[in-house]
Amino acid sequence: MKRKVGVLGPEGTFSEKAARRLMLDSDICYFTDFDEVIAAVERSDLDIGVVPLENSLEGSVGQTLDALLSRDVQIVGEMNLEVRHCLLGRGSPEDVKVILSHPQALAQCRGYLKRRFSGAEQRTTGSTSHAARLAQEFPEMAAIADAEAGERYGLAIIDRNVQDSDENVTRFAVVGRSTPKPTGFDKTSLAIYLERAEAGALWEVLGEFAVRKINLTKIESRPSKMGLGDYYFFIDLEGHVTDPPVEEALARIRKRAAVTKVLGSYPRTASP
Amino acid sequence: MKRKVGVLGPEGTFSEKAARRLMLDSDICYFTDFDEVIAAVERSDLDIGVVPLENSLEGSVGQTLDALLSRDVQIVGEMNLEVRHCLLGRGSPEDVKVILSHPQALAQCRGYLKRRFSGAEQRTTGSTSHAARLAQEFPEMAAIADAEAGERYGLAIIDRNVQDSDENVTRFAVVGRSTPKPTGFDKTSLAIYLERAEAGALWEVLGEFAVRKINLTKIESRPSKMGLGDYYFFIDLEGHVTDPPVEEALARIRKRAAVTKVLGSYPRTASP
Repeated sequence: MKRKVGVLGPEGTFSEKAARRLMLDSDICYFTDFDEVIAAVERSDLDIGVVPLENSLEGSVGQTLDALLSRDVQIVGEMNLEVRHCLLGRGSPEDVKVILSHPQALAQCRGYLKRRFSGAEQRTTGSTSHAARLAQEFPEMAAIADAEAGERYGLAIIDRNVQDSDENVTRFAVVGRSTPKPTGFDKTSLAIYLERAEAGALWEVLGEFAVRKINLTKIESRPSKMGLGDYYFFIDLEGHVTDPPVEEALARIRKRAAVTKVLGSYPRTASP
Repeated sequence: MKRKVGVLGPEGTFSEKAARRLMLDSDICYFTDFDEVIAAVERSDLDIGVVPLENSLEGSVGQTLDALLSRDVQIVGEMNLEVRHCLLGRGSPEDVKVILSHPQALAQCRGYLKRRFSGAEQRTTGSTSHAARLAQEFPEMAAIADAEAGERYGLAIIDRNVQDSDENVTRFAVVGRSTPKPTGFDKTSLAIYLERAEAGALWEVLGEFAVRKINLTKIESRPSKMGLGDYYFFIDLEGHVTDPPVEEALARIRKRAAVTKVLGSYPRTASP
């Protein structure tokens, strides 16, 4: 039986592209947002979900992190995808009055849009491919999306590579329900919440990793939504949650932090 | 002569509200984005600019941080403003087909919009008041903005307090060109860039503050735009840049970090 894999829809999103590169033999199911993909994994409607975690220009994808924090799922793999945006439309550049895309994609092309289309209205859509599907209907609209989405929806490429930097990579998480076995080349993702008042607490937490020579590949803050200056820290480290140094560091941190959630322990990608 | 103060326009933005609370006797000038406000301060077209730095739900305002990093200005003050969004329009809720607002405001109301207006299209505008001005013209549109912006543009309040949490505070920076003298109750804002390869570097940087009992009120990461896992860290600490412990810690950090930029040293707000 084919695996059921959930992604953001409709057809032609970057999430789908990432999912297809990872697993050829699977049934793709489309959802309207990342939280719905992760919720469907949690209630076993899907075998796996593929959702964006972070982007090199815009940072963490908040909705994904919020869902990973609150839902009972595990990251079971990761994948990096280079993201090249195109401006797609039916008409010539002069006809473009409205530019459609997912908020992350609009943000990744902020400089280009300001330079070339400062007079155009910007509208957000649920996904880049949703924008392409809408632009198919209205000649005064253009979409920021993948070139492949343009082909699928019969749009011409008005401009290529419109992202503000060529260093535009999105890291996707493969989300499942159980922790993969150690491979010797793993990564562990954590969310840690420290009480606001404890000023040196983050330093102490990082020290538990530093003294054990555990390499951190990411440390990113995200508002806890409980007040200014109050954060969750999302930390990725090299190693599996069952490796003794990682186990030890986590045991110490659990005594210190108000919340320590392991979001997943999974094989590391070798890609950039 | 009145001071010239720049804010995001048009009339009725939260930035303007913050500016008016801070300084009554001033001429307000309106700009189309935060970078333009800060650029106008840099070239002395303005005495002061008031721009949002971070929000308790959505975190840092990327465009402001990017402009503070790249331009030759100083944060000279700060102010916290409670942000209460309203859904404003001319018609009844059933007529609303399109919801307009600044991307930050749409993000702060993500849950409400999904719950109540999942079928409506979302369009981004340059500011919340710009959204209100547009909603004035089209009865099928509603804007997310301040109640006062609704009054100014003749819109009815369809729904009050539509932000996803009542703990919705935006911290504004007052931006000028020189560093205020120490008051004994100050804050210093820093941007620090560490080379990606140096795993324990952030731990060492935080240690320079911890051993000197310097309290950090914020530590937030933001992508350097040079690759995944590569960040600037924005750190706020209690104290003035001329306080000996702060001076010492900064001297040590400058040896360690690839970039250490003081974004400002200014009187701390007493508000939440």
